[in-house]
Amino acid sequence: MSRKIFRELISVEEARTKFYQYAPLDLVGVELLSLLETLGRVLAEDIFSPIDVPPFDRSAMDGFAVIANDTLGAAEDSPNNLEVIGDVQAGYVFDGLITGGNCVEISTGAPLPAGADSVVMVEYTQREKNNVDIYKPASPGQNVMSAGADIQKGELILLKGTLLSSRELSVLAAIGQSKILVYKKPKIGIFSSGDEVISADQTLTPGKLFDINSIAISAGINENGGDPTLLGIIEDDFKSLERKIGENLSKYDLLIISGGTSAGMGDMLFEVVDNLGDPGLLVHGIKVKPGKPTILAVCQGVPVIGLPGYPASALSIFQLFVVPYVRKIAGLSPVGIKTKVKAKVKQRLRSVMGRHEFKPMNLIKSETGWLAFPVPGGSGAITSIALADGFVEIPDNETFVLPNTEVEITLFSDKIKPIDLQIIGSHCSVLAKIIQALYQKYPEYHSRLIGVGTTGGIAAIRRGEAHVAGIHLLSDTGEYNKLDQNEVDAFVIPGYYRMQGFIVPKGNPKNINKLTDLIREDVLFMNRNPGSGTRVLLDYLLLQHKLNSDSIKGYSQYSKSHSSVAAAVKSGVVDVGLGIQSAIDDDLDFIPLKEEEYDFLINNNYRHLPAVNAFIDILKSERVTEIINNFPGYRKK
Amino acid sequence: MSRKIFRELISVEEARTKFYQYAPLDLVGVELLSLLETLGRVLAEDIFSPIDVPPFDRSAMDGFAVIANDTLGAAEDSPNNLEVIGDVQAGYVFDGLITGGNCVEISTGAPLPAGADSVVMVEYTQREKNNVDIYKPASPGQNVMSAGADIQKGELILLKGTLLSSRELSVLAAIGQSKILVYKKPKIGIFSSGDEVISADQTLTPGKLFDINSIAISAGINENGGDPTLLGIIEDDFKSLERKIGENLSKYDLLIISGGTSAGMGDMLFEVVDNLGDPGLLVHGIKVKPGKPTILAVCQGVPVIGLPGYPASALSIFQLFVVPYVRKIAGLSPVGIKTKVKAKVKQRLRSVMGRHEFKPMNLIKSETGWLAFPVPGGSGAITSIALADGFVEIPDNETFVLPNTEVEITLFSDKIKPIDLQIIGSHCSVLAKIIQALYQKYPEYHSRLIGVGTTGGIAAIRRGEAHVAGIHLLSDTGEYNKLDQNEVDAFVIPGYYRMQGFIVPKGNPKNINKLTDLIREDVLFMNRNPGSGTRVLLDYLLLQHKLNSDSIKGYSQYSKSHSSVAAAVKSGVVDVGLGIQSAIDDDLDFIPLKEEEYDFLINNNYRHLPAVNAFIDILKSERVTEIINNFPGYRKK
Repeated sequence: MSRKIFRELISVEEARTKFYQYAPLDLVGVELLSLLETLGRVLAEDIFSPIDVPPFDRSAMDGFAVIANDTLGAAEDSPNNLEVIGDVQAGYVFDGLITGGNCVEISTGAPLPAGADSVVMVEYTQREKNNVDIYKPASPGQNVMSAGADIQKGELILLKGTLLSSRELSVLAAIGQSKILVYKKPKIGIFSSGDEVISADQTLTPGKLFDINSIAISAGINENGGDPTLLGIIEDDFKSLERKIGENLSKYDLLIISGGTSAGMGDMLFEVVDNLGDPGLLVHGIKVKPGKPTILAVCQGVPVIGLPGYPASALSIFQLFVVPYVRKIAGLSPVGIKTKVKAKVKQRLRSVMGRHEFKPMNLIKSETGWLAFPVPGGSGAITSIALADGFVEIPDNETFVLPNTEVEITLFSDKIKPIDLQIIGSHCSVLAKIIQALYQKYPEYHSRLIGVGTTGGIAAIRRGEAHVAGIHLLSDTGEYNKLDQNEVDAFVIPGYYRMQGFIVPKGNPKNINKLTDLIREDVLFMNRNPGSGTRVLLDYLLLQHKLNSDSIKGYSQYSKSHSSVAAAVKSGVVDVGLGIQSAIDDDLDFIPLKEEEYDFLINNNYRHLPAVNAFIDILKSERVTEIINNFPGYRKK
Repeated sequence: MSRKIFRELISVEEARTKFYQYAPLDLVGVELLSLLETLGRVLAEDIFSPIDVPPFDRSAMDGFAVIANDTLGAAEDSPNNLEVIGDVQAGYVFDGLITGGNCVEISTGAPLPAGADSVVMVEYTQREKNNVDIYKPASPGQNVMSAGADIQKGELILLKGTLLSSRELSVLAAIGQSKILVYKKPKIGIFSSGDEVISADQTLTPGKLFDINSIAISAGINENGGDPTLLGIIEDDFKSLERKIGENLSKYDLLIISGGTSAGMGDMLFEVVDNLGDPGLLVHGIKVKPGKPTILAVCQGVPVIGLPGYPASALSIFQLFVVPYVRKIAGLSPVGIKTKVKAKVKQRLRSVMGRHEFKPMNLIKSETGWLAFPVPGGSGAITSIALADGFVEIPDNETFVLPNTEVEITLFSDKIKPIDLQIIGSHCSVLAKIIQALYQKYPEYHSRLIGVGTTGGIAAIRRGEAHVAGIHLLSDTGEYNKLDQNEVDAFVIPGYYRMQGFIVPKGNPKNINKLTDLIREDVLFMNRNPGSGTRVLLDYLLLQHKLNSDSIKGYSQYSKSHSSVAAAVKSGVVDVGLGIQSAIDDDLDFIPLKEEEYDFLINNNYRHLPAVNAFIDILKSERVTEIINNFPGYRKK
């Protein structure tokens, strides 16, 4: 047994070359499906038309099928009279011959009777029993669509490799193809690993995490033409790892093991795949960030890919290695026009020298095209997936991307629509309802809300990352949302008043009614995050009441949203939090403290965008006034 | 019974208004699906996180969980020594408390033991049985990802109405959502009608046509979030029409009757829907081209749409009325970024005043963006569907679009990729193989071949519609492909020699061996289309031999491709055709006549496009030389 231990990381390009040297690159086979089942599949044969379309000379009008020669000289005041020897409807054939001096009444779509060479429109005729007056001459071929005029028998219609959309299915229907040969979908088996991982239908117990990777991978395989199977969670045990991988090699075209983060798994997996051999381990560690501890192998002719455990790392390797391979063996073209978007970066992106960086980015619309912003969060963060529309790749020999550079963003899915309206700022429950009203009136605009607090919203306006910010900024003088135009290029649109107050358990068991109750020894408080308007309000009130924040138990701990504060109170972790009334439910009570002003800051650079105008428009609507005034603790400004 | 007969056509806008006044606009209901089944569906509830992610304070490194205070002053040369009171792996919980002077060895991803506030990386430690030397101080929180750092319990994660892609599924997995409430797909029932229409699995008999519309509509409904059911072909009979529609109203959210072209159907349908009532007929005839004879109705609360019979007309109404309605009641945003492409028209588009025109267009890549060209063919043509990528709408108050105007093209399907390389010109079997070789080497480029003959190809280069033309143009001097640069801004790349000859039935029963055999009384010929290089060759040879084309029986009838000529000979319709050897099969023989030169004309305006360069590159490849030389009757130039 040759044990290959790879200590040297290799580049993304080298890793791809090595992998493609051994991984099968052929399409995985063909299958015959009925026409409608082939939607979205890839055609596995050249299609030649077995018939003419239309299959016969066909009348394009309602009228009379004639020999053109018989209509010569016909005019309004001197019609030619012909004998009518029959009628023919679409779908039927006239069983006779037009010889001269006679004709057949014909419907649109009916086959031209033998002998006839043209059709006179019914408007230019007058029938009287078995005779008809023709008021206008016809030329040969007039109002007739010839057999094969559209598609000729034997014509090449579609090339092997064509992705079948409704358009192609229409053409296949026209030539009577009821069964179509398409490429099979590659079968991809997906294992999760790690003792800490449980599936979403299990109950969360201490120390456990829900399995993200296998769901993300499975859905991503689906979006890229593969047929995923979840093979469950695999134990961190050499023998069972070897057995489980070994017995599935013959059943799948690719096996993916989404790694746990537990120590030892990576070490075991590379040995296991190398034991399985032929050729076994190919790559163990790649110069990519994130995603370094990746394993690429081919075991007994079947590719096996070991992904790192952290979701962002797994996603990086999934996009860089798995997606291109699956599309290749599915017969799909590489990720293309639908999933590549050109965008400008607004801020300098840094990258580590010698590492190919995969940076999740979010996209927003500007007046000149798409702008891309890096998504916060390390390789452990889920939010970096939730907020990102796609990713940019920075090659290993580059260490930065300058602001205003145009980059290519690969969308995570062809279903993703970049953002027309990005609102960053203070959390507000009513804002989600306003966005829904916006969507109802302007369904063409796609919005995203990011809650980072008031000051985070203002900073996002400055960076150009937000079209709009929702703010409640209290100045030292007690005024709300007075911003210096020199500091931030934006204007304020009035929003609403909302009541801030204490969120306490139902019945207010600790009897918390005023600010000074917060400094009681028996009261544990949950603060909001620094930069949030609610925390600024608390600090302002403490200053007014000359109270010291150190005297509040829990002042330094915080939640990031009103609803999270409410959840903390509800679960009994704390006794009280400061927040808005709409965050509470029947298990909680709300003690009003101070009404504040929540307004919207509109980025001047984006004020002419249609989605921004739509937002301003909806804010002024009766529907939104109603939404606001019906929310407990809110009133429209 | 009030019989409404609408004699006045109404505008698209009026028709929409009337339809939306009565058609239900609510989403059709919700259903609870398991997470992976919701891919591509629309979320029907706001999602708040029921948990913190991560759910516990989590070690970000392998190392030792400590109280930071215990590591103060630790250095390489003076480590702090702590007692190791246990180990904890990811997925498990340490069942004890760190109090001071002690610590726990911890793996990446494991929960931080109670009492600890930080993790020292294993690199800065040296364990010796139950003790460990710490060589570097930790600060509180170091190497710990706090509970909720990523997502906090109670946080709003996804808004109702979100289209679920792999990205959203990942986030739902992270918060343990195994069942998701999504909107139901609207159920759409589709009838075909017309006595001439048969389904693709039936045998074509005289006067019949394969049903295109119901397949096109069914696939299109699928692509737009609906659940289509084919309800079969409905007879042109008042009673059965009324019964079939009536009994399906309660089963579907929308009924579509794709009309036959037979007379009377439209007249009957409008009466039937009006009889069904509540309110019945709404629109009968729209100022749209094509698609005028459309019926919009709401019967007993359920919308019923009658589409015209011609595929291009049906498609127009499908795109203008059905798609927007289905997307609306499916909860999908209107056709958006994925299916709207901005493109320049190169030639003047004409439109009829007072008609909203729906023009199928094809898209090709230029160096400055997409160009759009109208697709030939009337409302009866299938090719207008096959070749078109999408459509442009010209409102009823406009009569033209000027060349170089930017227009918005709506793609027929979000699966359609506009064309990187469009080759228009002479039919050639080997060209399809070259395109496949191109696709194998450069899968990122999407090509389309349009066979219209040599002169048609040159004209397409002039119009800017072709990147490349395949030509075999014989000059009066007998030279091939000598073009005047002043006439067409293009250059020639050598292609191949190919043998033209007589295509005859197996065994050459009529013993046709030389040109003069074509003028024999017992020989019926099939010509090629005017403008085709093969026809030009025939005319050149006739001239050389001083033969008159009138003396050839069948000279004036033609097929549009080599394979169609071969099909005509094979079926016995004619005795002989002129064409290339590769068009024949085992039932045919080939009598060589003259070798000609088939070359490629490259449009100078597109010569720097990557796909054009790729084509030039592949033409020079050994693979293509091999393909050409292996084709009977071909040799590489």
